[in-house]
Amino acid sequence: MIRFYNGRVLKFAGDYSVSPDEVWTDGGVIAYVGPKRQDAPKFEREIDLRGDILLPGIKNAHTHSAMTALRSFADDLPLKNWLFDKVFPIEAKLTPDHVYAFSKLAILEYLSSGSTAIFDMYMHVDAFAAAVSDCGFKAVICGASDDLNLQKDLYTKYNNKSANLSYRFGFHAEYTAEKSYLEELSALAKSYNAPVSTHCSETKNEVDGCIEKYGMTPPALFENLGLLDNGGTLFHCVHVNENDIEILKRRGAYAVTCPASNAKLASGIAPISDILKSGVNLAIGTDGPASNNALSMFREMYLCAVLAKIKENDAAAIPAETLLKAAVQGGRAMGLNNCESIKENSRADLCVISIEKPNMRPLHDVYKNIVYSADCTNVRLTMVEGKILYENGNYYIGEDPEDIYKRAEQLFPDLVQ
Amino acid sequence: MIRFYNGRVLKFAGDYSVSPDEVWTDGGVIAYVGPKRQDAPKFEREIDLRGDILLPGIKNAHTHSAMTALRSFADDLPLKNWLFDKVFPIEAKLTPDHVYAFSKLAILEYLSSGSTAIFDMYMHVDAFAAAVSDCGFKAVICGASDDLNLQKDLYTKYNNKSANLSYRFGFHAEYTAEKSYLEELSALAKSYNAPVSTHCSETKNEVDGCIEKYGMTPPALFENLGLLDNGGTLFHCVHVNENDIEILKRRGAYAVTCPASNAKLASGIAPISDILKSGVNLAIGTDGPASNNALSMFREMYLCAVLAKIKENDAAAIPAETLLKAAVQGGRAMGLNNCESIKENSRADLCVISIEKPNMRPLHDVYKNIVYSADCTNVRLTMVEGKILYENGNYYIGEDPEDIYKRAEQLFPDLVQ
Repeated sequence: MIRFYNGRVLKFAGDYSVSPDEVWTDGGVIAYVGPKRQDAPKFEREIDLRGDILLPGIKNAHTHSAMTALRSFADDLPLKNWLFDKVFPIEAKLTPDHVYAFSKLAILEYLSSGSTAIFDMYMHVDAFAAAVSDCGFKAVICGASDDLNLQKDLYTKYNNKSANLSYRFGFHAEYTAEKSYLEELSALAKSYNAPVSTHCSETKNEVDGCIEKYGMTPPALFENLGLLDNGGTLFHCVHVNENDIEILKRRGAYAVTCPASNAKLASGIAPISDILKSGVNLAIGTDGPASNNALSMFREMYLCAVLAKIKENDAAAIPAETLLKAAVQGGRAMGLNNCESIKENSRADLCVISIEKPNMRPLHDVYKNIVYSADCTNVRLTMVEGKILYENGNYYIGEDPEDIYKRAEQLFPDLVQ
Repeated sequence: MIRFYNGRVLKFAGDYSVSPDEVWTDGGVIAYVGPKRQDAPKFEREIDLRGDILLPGIKNAHTHSAMTALRSFADDLPLKNWLFDKVFPIEAKLTPDHVYAFSKLAILEYLSSGSTAIFDMYMHVDAFAAAVSDCGFKAVICGASDDLNLQKDLYTKYNNKSANLSYRFGFHAEYTAEKSYLEELSALAKSYNAPVSTHCSETKNEVDGCIEKYGMTPPALFENLGLLDNGGTLFHCVHVNENDIEILKRRGAYAVTCPASNAKLASGIAPISDILKSGVNLAIGTDGPASNNALSMFREMYLCAVLAKIKENDAAAIPAETLLKAAVQGGRAMGLNNCESIKENSRADLCVISIEKPNMRPLHDVYKNIVYSADCTNVRLTMVEGKILYENGNYYIGEDPEDIYKRAEQLFPDLVQ
């Protein structure tokens, strides 16, 4: 058992109050949350938080990890040139070795930014799953293949395979899929009572194209095809209208906003105030490092807030607490409902944000400080399934980061030859 | 003498190439930039950069340091409530002791984010100057007083007092100043051949009010009053039109953009593409921690880029290099023309950005990685006037950060009583 004490605990179990409770973890589980106890067991380790902030780990609800290969490889280009001239030619050459190495690089960054789980959509899924398993990290794989049998095989192989790895049906986007395939995928998902996830309404072009082709917006099409019958998760949702939001609400679907990517690719600002007001569940993702270019959810939370304030022309739009909650509880968008609060029997996915840096002082408001001031500098510790994988700049994932950097950089030249 | 070697050097002396040169500093000056030499002297210290990035220190061209007191004290409020109900009542109680303590807190944050100089506008100037001097930091004080004699005294006392401290005439904004005062200040500045700095066109309300009162926009008014006769620096410039930009260009004035503050207070997005295209000099500032809430120029550079891309609906709008240049050479906006490049005889104001974190790998493009990926995690070292004030998480400013945190937090309760 590990004991955290003397901290500021954000439980996300009902309210936003800051608690002085102790938190004990036992294996992969939170075993106790409450005041100091005389009958405490002998702990494997006791961590004096010295006033630092303990909270459930942050969930990155949309990413393409192995795209670290392309970080800062092609920026400041028009969207089409970026995608067709730079991203696609490289992706065509990616092998499982590449995906393994570049996903590990991403996992380092998730850990040092306090993230404990990701919803990852990419190719060479087995290699990605191996990287997650080898590091002890946590991921839900989002299907992206247009091969129905492969989706079925991957579902069988990975869904709820372990506490660390799961799988959900998905497809890249309306504009890359045949209608017949969407119909088949819909039938398959229904037969498993499973939700479906996809990129949705990321750009105005995409929405215009869908209306031209089908006479309706992407969310309307997806509902129409039964793809949202068991809920689902729609990534981006930049260009959703009132009716689209109503569809998400009706279907219990999640919207995942990716503000950094949407801003940098000039896709626009998602109407997250409207989404939240409607009662649709909101999660937050970084998207891949080719468009972001970082994998820190601190920047995403911050951007959600300030972009909403600009969009609404209202400095009061969306308080910080709401965004930290979306980041912490965004795991629901990928089916993780057991690691979003600090309470007994929840999974021990936690992070510690240190107040021992000037950007966190004074500490008038823990939530505002985290969303509006903090960055990766402040992450002291990240624990996944009860194991400390990152602490004070050091990684405990079974491999030296320097070797991961070197391997990724050795592999890159293959991709541009 | 201190020797930096084995690094990637961004000189900002003519082009954006990345150089493998050594850099030697001698006292407050850069003594040598070039290849390894056999006739090297005995160095006081030799710093192996191990591939890390050495560049001129970042300049924060608009801030109110002591407002760290109000960090996260009043967020997510409508602009008017924020200012009148929260900020002004606290500011009315600030004493020199407060300004000294809260400015020191800010200096810690500037240093750990690679900033080597700031353009600070606030009250109790002597206390601020003492904090800067005591830490060995570098600041140019921007006048904000509506007492002409005080401005004259402060100019005499501080302008070019030392390499670390200087003073420029300024006033808060058009909407807080009497016309007669602006006329007197203009005459005073002209008699010293000195530029004038002020908040300008930050909100639409401000511009509308100025047009209503004077029949012209703030920049037009300032030009009309002769306030820009010796150049000048206009903070924010969110709501400047084509004619305003033409005035800045004609007068050789600087625009300082503060994207985080403008976004969070819902003031808008400055037209920095138009400003840059017109040839107006652009600098970047954080503004004060009451509206930002951080003092990291990494976030500002990043926001400049992505907000411009959204505003222009163009993913190619403003490349990263341009923004890093504006951040590094923004010292010109405060009269610092001697610490913006790595070249012999320049002042030794430098920072080192480490590549030993996953967010900086692979290293396809140093500039893009700094602007689009880096945060304070990556700052390895900050040197001001040849002295290392921050290195690997430690501060060398003559006082323990913990004492600075405690003092600031002890003093805050005075302000809310």
